[in-house]
Amino acid sequence: MLTYSFADIGSDSLYHHLYQCVKNDILSGELAVGTKLPSKRSFAKNLGVSNITVENAYAQLQAEGYIYSIPKKGFYVREISGLTFPVEETSSESSGRNSLPQQYVADFVSNRINPGQFPFSVWSKLLRETLLNRHEELLETPPWGGILELRRAISGHLKEFRNMEVSPEQIIIGAGTEYLYGLLIQLLGRDKIYAVENPGYHKIAKIYEGNGVGVRFIPVDKTGMDIVQLEMSAAHVAHISPSHHFPTGIVTPIGKRYELLGWATREKGRYIIEDDYDSEFRLAGKPIPTLQGIDRSERVIYINTFTKSLASTIRISYMVLPKHLLEEFERRLSFYSCTVSNFEQYTLARFIEEGYFEKHINRMRTHYRRIRDELMCAIRKSPLAACCEITEEDAGLHFLLHIDTKLSDHDLLQKAKQASIRLSSLSEYYCDGTPDVPAHTFPINYSGLSSEEIPYVVKLMTKCVFKA
Amino acid sequence: MLTYSFADIGSDSLYHHLYQCVKNDILSGELAVGTKLPSKRSFAKNLGVSNITVENAYAQLQAEGYIYSIPKKGFYVREISGLTFPVEETSSESSGRNSLPQQYVADFVSNRINPGQFPFSVWSKLLRETLLNRHEELLETPPWGGILELRRAISGHLKEFRNMEVSPEQIIIGAGTEYLYGLLIQLLGRDKIYAVENPGYHKIAKIYEGNGVGVRFIPVDKTGMDIVQLEMSAAHVAHISPSHHFPTGIVTPIGKRYELLGWATREKGRYIIEDDYDSEFRLAGKPIPTLQGIDRSERVIYINTFTKSLASTIRISYMVLPKHLLEEFERRLSFYSCTVSNFEQYTLARFIEEGYFEKHINRMRTHYRRIRDELMCAIRKSPLAACCEITEEDAGLHFLLHIDTKLSDHDLLQKAKQASIRLSSLSEYYCDGTPDVPAHTFPINYSGLSSEEIPYVVKLMTKCVFKA
Repeated sequence: MLTYSFADIGSDSLYHHLYQCVKNDILSGELAVGTKLPSKRSFAKNLGVSNITVENAYAQLQAEGYIYSIPKKGFYVREISGLTFPVEETSSESSGRNSLPQQYVADFVSNRINPGQFPFSVWSKLLRETLLNRHEELLETPPWGGILELRRAISGHLKEFRNMEVSPEQIIIGAGTEYLYGLLIQLLGRDKIYAVENPGYHKIAKIYEGNGVGVRFIPVDKTGMDIVQLEMSAAHVAHISPSHHFPTGIVTPIGKRYELLGWATREKGRYIIEDDYDSEFRLAGKPIPTLQGIDRSERVIYINTFTKSLASTIRISYMVLPKHLLEEFERRLSFYSCTVSNFEQYTLARFIEEGYFEKHINRMRTHYRRIRDELMCAIRKSPLAACCEITEEDAGLHFLLHIDTKLSDHDLLQKAKQASIRLSSLSEYYCDGTPDVPAHTFPINYSGLSSEEIPYVVKLMTKCVFKA
Repeated sequence: MLTYSFADIGSDSLYHHLYQCVKNDILSGELAVGTKLPSKRSFAKNLGVSNITVENAYAQLQAEGYIYSIPKKGFYVREISGLTFPVEETSSESSGRNSLPQQYVADFVSNRINPGQFPFSVWSKLLRETLLNRHEELLETPPWGGILELRRAISGHLKEFRNMEVSPEQIIIGAGTEYLYGLLIQLLGRDKIYAVENPGYHKIAKIYEGNGVGVRFIPVDKTGMDIVQLEMSAAHVAHISPSHHFPTGIVTPIGKRYELLGWATREKGRYIIEDDYDSEFRLAGKPIPTLQGIDRSERVIYINTFTKSLASTIRISYMVLPKHLLEEFERRLSFYSCTVSNFEQYTLARFIEEGYFEKHINRMRTHYRRIRDELMCAIRKSPLAACCEITEEDAGLHFLLHIDTKLSDHDLLQKAKQASIRLSSLSEYYCDGTPDVPAHTFPINYSGLSSEEIPYVVKLMTKCVFKA
């Protein structure tokens, strides 16, 4: 029977260690496809661990697709279809799964940060010191807007990097922008109509629809949301991303920004939600002032997140409310508790305050620029060069790849999926019924790619495009 | 000019160290009331730190009420009115403040855990090991229901402590129950009517109202929510806390539980939200099966939280969905990202799995029982004994104190406030217009009290009742 040692497991849990051992043997081929694994009971007895340990290990292996079970027979090793470096499916759009991950060689859809890039040692040090030195504060209910220290640090950061004059009190911390959108609907009103960008990030419209408010899809022209259409739509609130529109990559120029502010001030009760989700990663060009920064009439709500700039799995985002909305929030919604753990709020506050965040952003910007350049270079040196064009590559973490091909978008996406590449087409980000949707254009989010993977991934992409 | 050393500040930030120094001098009287503090610029120069360090320290001192500013003049030490041990205002109901804390000697309204009770060293160890060993998993987007390991640990815990058979997949993790209520409204529907308990925990009704759905206040009789009134109300969803009703302390007996299930199954589309918020802290008596545990028709959604059992500032709660609702959730709402940080989910998973949670609960139960007994004993030995009665003291973290007094509830609460005691009356938890609201009854949440404080606090309470 299979035997593993539990001697050097360190701080790992028993079941996780067992899971790792079996997984490694499956990946190395030691355990061949179709091999029947020992029964839970006999395996547990043999290893000298509890049944529950084996059960948990098997459950994890099954959930991750390494093994499968046949009722009343047992557990068997599943075929893992020729993956060289498995990447778990992750998605900023939707994880689309509750327990069973799908595996990809490359994922051009999600934002992700590779483990080598995350500042684990600094984060761990700050967290440890916070836990050691701040017992009282860690257990004190924070103000509804979040820990004051963090809001002060963010206020300083916004001043320095976005030239925004924002008082810490105006900042409200929340567990992800999705949660903050929900609060904003409660603040601005369910009777309001919300305008979203078309094409745009699906999830925003889904959240408005899920909350039962009216949504209008407004076309995006070459400079951002179309003002004439916006005016005609009867919308009260425009949710836009002027710093870097997703998926087109458009950056709204300053003139258009003033026009948008003009729209907002033209009628009472109009607001702009300025979603600045990846402005930290502008890779070239001059920064353009935020709408919040040039707004003199309290019409702009600024939203940003650390899920893009730090890690999507640390759920910390924030919004900046104009003063009159802040008062209204306090009056009507301050009964909500802050949704982010004090432990992480204090840690992030020090991370920003002591300059680590700035260093991290600079390092990531350099890293992303390199990955982008290497990927573009590899594409240009590949057979793809003959039929591809790259645009909108300077802002944020994705560019657009235009492919001159006879394949339909659907067919190309299918082929990519078969090659274990997670790809989306620009057309997917338009709402149903939009006329003249551009074909053969693919947003390429390269944040999860590593240098080593690029040659192989470009080879796979070439195959998808050229092989029948 | 004031001078402080920055030699031994360790890992503390400069501004926080300065804040502490000044605060200590104010509390010790070294800096007398009304003393003008040095200007930011000259203080910074004198201490050899940046202006922003002094600015941040002053901002914190000002926010916490130690100093005040006079525009164009400067900062002055504020009078701190005779507090012996300041407790920052915290509240499970509403923190009611965004930056300026109010201070109390004792707080009988909020759930809180004292720093001495929180398992800092174990938590810190597990967190450190998680950060050291699980880089890959920490940065991987979790399934929408949360980290599988945590859900498995919770499933095991529910089996062991509540005798509930729940698969990990049925469990959905979220950043606090308030957030989960919002998801449930999206799942069950905005066209539904939600029944809440009267009296009850204000915030629940506020959240339903904030989300724009119909709410009915259903009277609570001696066994829980009144079934006849519930049936007559046309409500579709009943939000109840049968394990320990807040604020009355009622535990719903088994017979009534079956009646509630009967209500739920009588018509299609009816559901019960079973809020089991403090069941871990039943101090005596036999546990009664959860509604979820005896539900055979998928009508019960079980909700529980670690904010009560671990710390309110670690925002982790969960709900258990019946299978058909889980499928619907996956279909319609799985685009929402999990709102809790991976870092804390993995840490909590190990905390539960390795038995620390059980130990913590047992230790806290012993602690709370002792505090409750000491407080009840101190009241019985005080002059209050002549006019007080205590009821519902065996479940959860509060009991009811009935005071035979000529003072109105309003007057007594005012006097308590003047004595720096945060107190609420039972009458406050009834919705407006309820007839025959009981007077002179006060829910006493003793979770934040320490042994040393009890004699002084009971003395203060006695004064409130007897002194004109």
